[in-house]
Amino acid sequence: MWGGRFSKSIDDAFARLNASFGFDWRLYDADIRGSIAYAKALARVGIVSETERDTLMDGLTRVKAEFDARKFETKATDEDIHTAVERRLGELVGTVAGKLHTGRSRNDQVATDTRLFVLTAIRNTQYAIRALQSAIVQKAEQHSDVLMPGYTHMQRAQLVLFAHWLMSFFWMLQRDLERFGDAAERTAVLPLGAGAIAGNTIGTDREFLARELGFRTISANSIDAVSDRDFIAEFLFDAALLGVHLSRLGEDLVLYSSAEFGFVTMDDAYATGSSLMPQKKNPDAMELARGKAARLIGDLTTLLTLLKGLPSSYDKDLQEDKEPLFDAVDTLDALLPVVAGVVRTMRVNRDKMRDALDTAMLATDLADYLVRRGMPFREAHRNAGEAVKLAETRGVELSELSAADYQKIAPEFGADVKDVFDFGQSVASREIAGGTGPNAVRAQIAAAKQIANVL
Amino acid sequence: MWGGRFSKSIDDAFARLNASFGFDWRLYDADIRGSIAYAKALARVGIVSETERDTLMDGLTRVKAEFDARKFETKATDEDIHTAVERRLGELVGTVAGKLHTGRSRNDQVATDTRLFVLTAIRNTQYAIRALQSAIVQKAEQHSDVLMPGYTHMQRAQLVLFAHWLMSFFWMLQRDLERFGDAAERTAVLPLGAGAIAGNTIGTDREFLARELGFRTISANSIDAVSDRDFIAEFLFDAALLGVHLSRLGEDLVLYSSAEFGFVTMDDAYATGSSLMPQKKNPDAMELARGKAARLIGDLTTLLTLLKGLPSSYDKDLQEDKEPLFDAVDTLDALLPVVAGVVRTMRVNRDKMRDALDTAMLATDLADYLVRRGMPFREAHRNAGEAVKLAETRGVELSELSAADYQKIAPEFGADVKDVFDFGQSVASREIAGGTGPNAVRAQIAAAKQIANVL
Amino acid sequence: MWGGRFSKSIDDAFARLNASFGFDWRLYDADIRGSIAYAKALARVGIVSETERDTLMDGLTRVKAEFDARKFETKATDEDIHTAVERRLGELVGTVAGKLHTGRSRNDQVATDTRLFVLTAIRNTQYAIRALQSAIVQKAEQHSDVLMPGYTHMQRAQLVLFAHWLMSFFWMLQRDLERFGDAAERTAVLPLGAGAIAGNTIGTDREFLARELGFRTISANSIDAVSDRDFIAEFLFDAALLGVHLSRLGEDLVLYSSAEFGFVTMDDAYATGSSLMPQKKNPDAMELARGKAARLIGDLTTLLTLLKGLPSSYDKDLQEDKEPLFDAVDTLDALLPVVAGVVRTMRVNRDKMRDALDTAMLATDLADYLVRRGMPFREAHRNAGEAVKLAETRGVELSELSAADYQKIAPEFGADVKDVFDFGQSVASREIAGGTGPNAVRAQIAAAKQIANVL
Amino acid sequence: MWGGRFSKSIDDAFARLNASFGFDWRLYDADIRGSIAYAKALARVGIVSETERDTLMDGLTRVKAEFDARKFETKATDEDIHTAVERRLGELVGTVAGKLHTGRSRNDQVATDTRLFVLTAIRNTQYAIRALQSAIVQKAEQHSDVLMPGYTHMQRAQLVLFAHWLMSFFWMLQRDLERFGDAAERTAVLPLGAGAIAGNTIGTDREFLARELGFRTISANSIDAVSDRDFIAEFLFDAALLGVHLSRLGEDLVLYSSAEFGFVTMDDAYATGSSLMPQKKNPDAMELARGKAARLIGDLTTLLTLLKGLPSSYDKDLQEDKEPLFDAVDTLDALLPVVAGVVRTMRVNRDKMRDALDTAMLATDLADYLVRRGMPFREAHRNAGEAVKLAETRGVELSELSAADYQKIAPEFGADVKDVFDFGQSVASREIAGGTGPNAVRAQIAAAKQIANVL
Repeated sequence: MWGGRFSKSIDDAFARLNASFGFDWRLYDADIRGSIAYAKALARVGIVSETERDTLMDGLTRVKAEFDARKFETKATDEDIHTAVERRLGELVGTVAGKLHTGRSRNDQVATDTRLFVLTAIRNTQYAIRALQSAIVQKAEQHSDVLMPGYTHMQRAQLVLFAHWLMSFFWMLQRDLERFGDAAERTAVLPLGAGAIAGNTIGTDREFLARELGFRTISANSIDAVSDRDFIAEFLFDAALLGVHLSRLGEDLVLYSSAEFGFVTMDDAYATGSSLMPQKKNPDAMELARGKAARLIGDLTTLLTLLKGLPSSYDKDLQEDKEPLFDAVDTLDALLPVVAGVVRTMRVNRDKMRDALDTAMLATDLADYLVRRGMPFREAHRNAGEAVKLAETRGVELSELSAADYQKIAPEFGADVKDVFDFGQSVASREIAGGTGPNAVRAQIAAAKQIANVL
Repeated sequence: MWGGRFSKSIDDAFARLNASFGFDWRLYDADIRGSIAYAKALARVGIVSETERDTLMDGLTRVKAEFDARKFETKATDEDIHTAVERRLGELVGTVAGKLHTGRSRNDQVATDTRLFVLTAIRNTQYAIRALQSAIVQKAEQHSDVLMPGYTHMQRAQLVLFAHWLMSFFWMLQRDLERFGDAAERTAVLPLGAGAIAGNTIGTDREFLARELGFRTISANSIDAVSDRDFIAEFLFDAALLGVHLSRLGEDLVLYSSAEFGFVTMDDAYATGSSLMPQKKNPDAMELARGKAARLIGDLTTLLTLLKGLPSSYDKDLQEDKEPLFDAVDTLDALLPVVAGVVRTMRVNRDKMRDALDTAMLATDLADYLVRRGMPFREAHRNAGEAVKLAETRGVELSELSAADYQKIAPEFGADVKDVFDFGQSVASREIAGGTGPNAVRAQIAAAKQIANVL
Repeated sequence: MWGGRFSKSIDDAFARLNASFGFDWRLYDADIRGSIAYAKALARVGIVSETERDTLMDGLTRVKAEFDARKFETKATDEDIHTAVERRLGELVGTVAGKLHTGRSRNDQVATDTRLFVLTAIRNTQYAIRALQSAIVQKAEQHSDVLMPGYTHMQRAQLVLFAHWLMSFFWMLQRDLERFGDAAERTAVLPLGAGAIAGNTIGTDREFLARELGFRTISANSIDAVSDRDFIAEFLFDAALLGVHLSRLGEDLVLYSSAEFGFVTMDDAYATGSSLMPQKKNPDAMELARGKAARLIGDLTTLLTLLKGLPSSYDKDLQEDKEPLFDAVDTLDALLPVVAGVVRTMRVNRDKMRDALDTAMLATDLADYLVRRGMPFREAHRNAGEAVKLAETRGVELSELSAADYQKIAPEFGADVKDVFDFGQSVASREIAGGTGPNAVRAQIAAAKQIANVL
Repeated sequence: MWGGRFSKSIDDAFARLNASFGFDWRLYDADIRGSIAYAKALARVGIVSETERDTLMDGLTRVKAEFDARKFETKATDEDIHTAVERRLGELVGTVAGKLHTGRSRNDQVATDTRLFVLTAIRNTQYAIRALQSAIVQKAEQHSDVLMPGYTHMQRAQLVLFAHWLMSFFWMLQRDLERFGDAAERTAVLPLGAGAIAGNTIGTDREFLARELGFRTISANSIDAVSDRDFIAEFLFDAALLGVHLSRLGEDLVLYSSAEFGFVTMDDAYATGSSLMPQKKNPDAMELARGKAARLIGDLTTLLTLLKGLPSSYDKDLQEDKEPLFDAVDTLDALLPVVAGVVRTMRVNRDKMRDALDTAMLATDLADYLVRRGMPFREAHRNAGEAVKLAETRGVELSELSAADYQKIAPEFGADVKDVFDFGQSVASREIAGGTGPNAVRAQIAAAKQIANVL
């Protein structure tokens, strides 16, 4: 396609290294949509006649059909998806195919194709996030009165509702969803018309092209247009952070489904066994959720490192943008529905969670008791700490210390100190907005349902 | 502060490892602003009286003054900025200081402080980006008629205006600026009131706190609130991508200021010499612009890796979020004004750029000539390629081939083919929106000025 | 120092960006050692007289003393440690100081200094690793007969000795130690004499310099010598992988010290409390061990990204090599002794581990029982799996199924199947080299002690 | 294979996520070699008879033949390469196949397979490095007398020989090669016999297995053995650093083949054209060499991030180790031969390099001239700097200043100062070991040839 000035054909190993068709064939739909719009734009400026335009559009539609039906035959010379489509179009419609590339470079073409691809990927990811959010909300609602230990530093900290814990992931996902939305805004900027670097001389109507292809606006500078891969970086960052959230849910569920915690039981449909140990039931799905964040972070690192220090405008290095992008898209596609399935089907073991509560977790409530009697919190904290130490020394629960014990620690302790040791009351006392009180959690779920109805 | 239940003091090496005051003292302003607002909120729910509130506010203001004046005296027991401020407050105002922490945990406190810090950092970064954008627009306007070679693959590709090349960076920075703006939206969500993990029992008015501290809204889930570091990750990503843009400008300017290109000359104020080679004048500023992207990428990697697979809610690992954040903030603070200075002061060598133009760069225009005569672009491209090869074989410029030579290649070539070899005309023919035509570039600069007036 | 050809002084903001003295002062010891050796080498080729050499050496020793005593006074013009030392030397000994830089560039000087610094850092790290290994071996020996559940996928898998689990970290650290040793070999290659890029004209004896400074050999190519930062990359990778190992130990100990596991109890000297929750005792040290791996990975990413695509020989970007290096060195310095302290002082809760054993963990032994009766393992695995399912359905231990139950599953089960359910026997049956059998573990510990005596 | 205790089959989406056969089929050769050795080991401890062993070995050989011939038929239930091979073996040889897994877990099996794979990959990489080193040495020798500007900060610094520049890459590659060698030592440690985590009960002779499979030694701890992925991390680091070296060569050659430098011309076999611009000849191969370092760095980041904070022993997350490994292996396989081809075939443009020399590059020689007359270097540097400034002000070469000009700057300048301006002499004066003097470079090449004969 570009051989005019060359006197020698290229080395085989180099041809293999150079070719991108092995992975960028995935852009075929975007590429052909872009070319159909471009054929229309060429007709509008008179580069092709209306008949020629229709011939090109028909031909392109036939090429797409071949790809759709997995019947497209690759030639060794198909360097990338763009040359492959152009070559096949030529075979189908003859020399008029040679007009399609007028004023267009692979530089603006591939930038356009990739943006179309990312826009689709964002939409799909958003749907998959919504599905996971729905699973979370449903599960939270079904078990809205289950108490569990809330942990900080993996140590039992304070009581929370199971629903409150689970809902915490809803909001992480909500931020992801919004972040992808912002990325979509910046992705929907049309580069087509930038040519190789300088724009083109045939004056294609770029606003028309943007409308045809569903872009929000057109790029403002042709040099930037052909080398801007920020939209991929942003997608990969959003994917990595989403991956991080899934990895944290993964860690929690791996722990909670261990024998030691036992808070949840994975459904058999989402667990595996061992080839050696007959008793094993492993939470592989959530381990993979934990692990796959790593590759998403790696994909992001690849792209940022690739772009760093690159000379202006298009460099071939940019061809390396696609594989991390595709890898991230595939990873999310495969992972999100499985995580949703795990959440939807896991068994919640209310009793196990109840068994894990102990009255030391009410030490803050004990301090709050003193605060209500006018003691400054710092002093109250110290006194409650003394009680904890005493109970631990004696090997008893905090609630098993006597009223006398308490009064020895601080005279502010009355007989009603025993009332502190009521797990349900502890949770109920945290009805602050965003807190774990039952009403606050109900309000939280209601708000989430409202949000989750809108994409 | 938390020693009630402990029977032994902590190991020295561990105390050093554990302490964060060495770096998180930088949060003092945010921490004290947060505490002042919190004192007000405590008064509103009656935990402190109005007098106590005023005492706390006065004391906090005095602590801040000590920090501002660099007169704050650290104690060995100051584990972090929060305990340091609380300790000092106690010294200044007595036991009432012990009430300030009621219902508040360092978990929601540090999350609030860090968000305030990031909000300030975003604003500063946006101002610094604007200053660099202004330098770019000015320089572009001053040299709006200078021609230069546009490169792809570091090979001369097509003619562009110097202003067009320079303005390409304006738009990258514009995306950065918008991205930081989106990050600010998601940062301005108040965690205070989340307590350690479960909310608090004293029902502080979180909407009031949000208004006092300039947050847009309040967090919806207390578990998420104390462990959410997405806003730092997003800041670091935005910083890394901004760094990548500066690194690309760095690479270009390092090359353009080399003897071989000579397109620009660094001002002496932004260059250094060699301790060994007396003739050297080095573009260190732009090399650092290129290099510093690496640490920004490293900072981002640190944070994402830190968060990946972390159990729910607050874990001590999160203390490691601050140093990459501070490093990124400091890096941008130091770098952006210098890059702006370089752009503002660099000498643009119009003649050197003119000397670098050659007529082979008009080969696309030559093909376009044939297209205008009805030849399909692919065929036109091949014919223009033949001309390039012929000129190269003869060792002459493309413009030095005779009309006869051209006609031998393709009969469509007329005598007027010579008109193609006009550099100014080549640029002028690309007046497409976003292209390098003089009017298009003028429009681009005008649009940029419009945008740059708004922060 | 390099201002001869410049007509303007440098911009303040740029001077701050450009200067590295703020961090590279840490190289002072290496820098001065290097200069002392260089003074000797200059004397050997007659550039300085023996008297001048002695003057230089005395002066340098005095400069070092000022640094050691933290009395070195910085000037605003001290661009980096090299110019600072040279400036101060000039003040102390006069113009002869101006001879010290003959034939030397900051390029070969800083490369030499940094290698000396890394060699010291490697040695220190190796000692700290040894100390941690000793703590591990001692603890393992002290508790050599304690049984615990071995986990895969965080599910109870098979019984192991606590000592076996703990010793698994010994071998990770041993690989780290060897890897650092390999890095030292490649670090101990002297760049001095490479000048700025091309070597020098005064023919300093590089082999002599190598011997003086304790390098193994000299670099073979001056261009490579001044820009080679592989030794830093290798150090950072080794540090990151060491960090990963510590993070895995961190994760285990955070889990094992949770209420749910309870296998170990952190000593109060290595735990912290909560500012809010009086009962909390948090394993901060091990959370930081887990978290700090992230910054080590970030440091490595920074350096590799920095080097990627850099033009040949010295570029200013390389100044960015030092902060990630220093950060990694400081991180390991702070962390390793604390981890050793944690291991040395943690309480091992034998009973808690014993309580966590259940007979389902002997399902593999059950299958092995059938294998010993001639059944192919796959079939045996399936039969043992059936037994597990039956026990689970009935809600009983595997050992509580009757002999009749077992025979219904497979006639190969005899009355002696009950003998399988002996925890001690299970461990004892795995005396294969590297296995968890008591003798195998004793041999493992003995081998470790042998190794750990040698640095 | 592990279904005994499960009552439900697994979800389809989860099955797809969980399965690794799609990529780990590449381990088939290693897996079958491992199983053949294991069959022998089972026979030695009497688990299978000699006849059964031969049956297993025959069957495994047939399975391998099917893979080799790309005729292996996959079943939907083939979860990974290990189950696929075992399933097919069962079809071919019947129930005896069920004995092969006795005492073996997929945990120790996959660890063994992957090590075998990495050992092969290291060997192949080392051969490919050697081939590139040979191309470098040959090219350097062919052009051993060509002068070129040596650059620091991309500014002309001092003269060097082209061969010296090119040879600088030889030594980077030599370190890579040695680093891979060290990695091979640590990879060649046999995990087989570790079982799932605890060792096995049948006492397979692990030393025998190590010998059979070409391992140097056996692992010392079964828990470590099944979860150690250090050898992959080390391979990926070595690959990333090698990639960085190739990226630096890429950057140099992209620049040197630009019109502005013109030092080398890519052979047509290793260059590409533009689909739009007929005159373009792009150095794609070296741009890809520059870009592909990014993905190697990304692969390394993935693995380190994956391992960080993982609980002890085998977790499913580890399945994610393979794709970054395979990606790195494929990247190096594809890239190294192309880079060797580029170096071998590129045209060296002696005249262009000569044209790029200017006498300002001899300013250090000018200072050295004064040093030889007894002036301290710092003063000499300043004087030479003055000369540079004067020449620049007048717009002349440094050599065009008169003797009188020089004497005005410093009386030490004699009439013979003109002799300094001899390019050949400048290079010849740097015969220090590792310097750019012709003899030093010849010695360097001779040493390299000696080294390169040994693998």
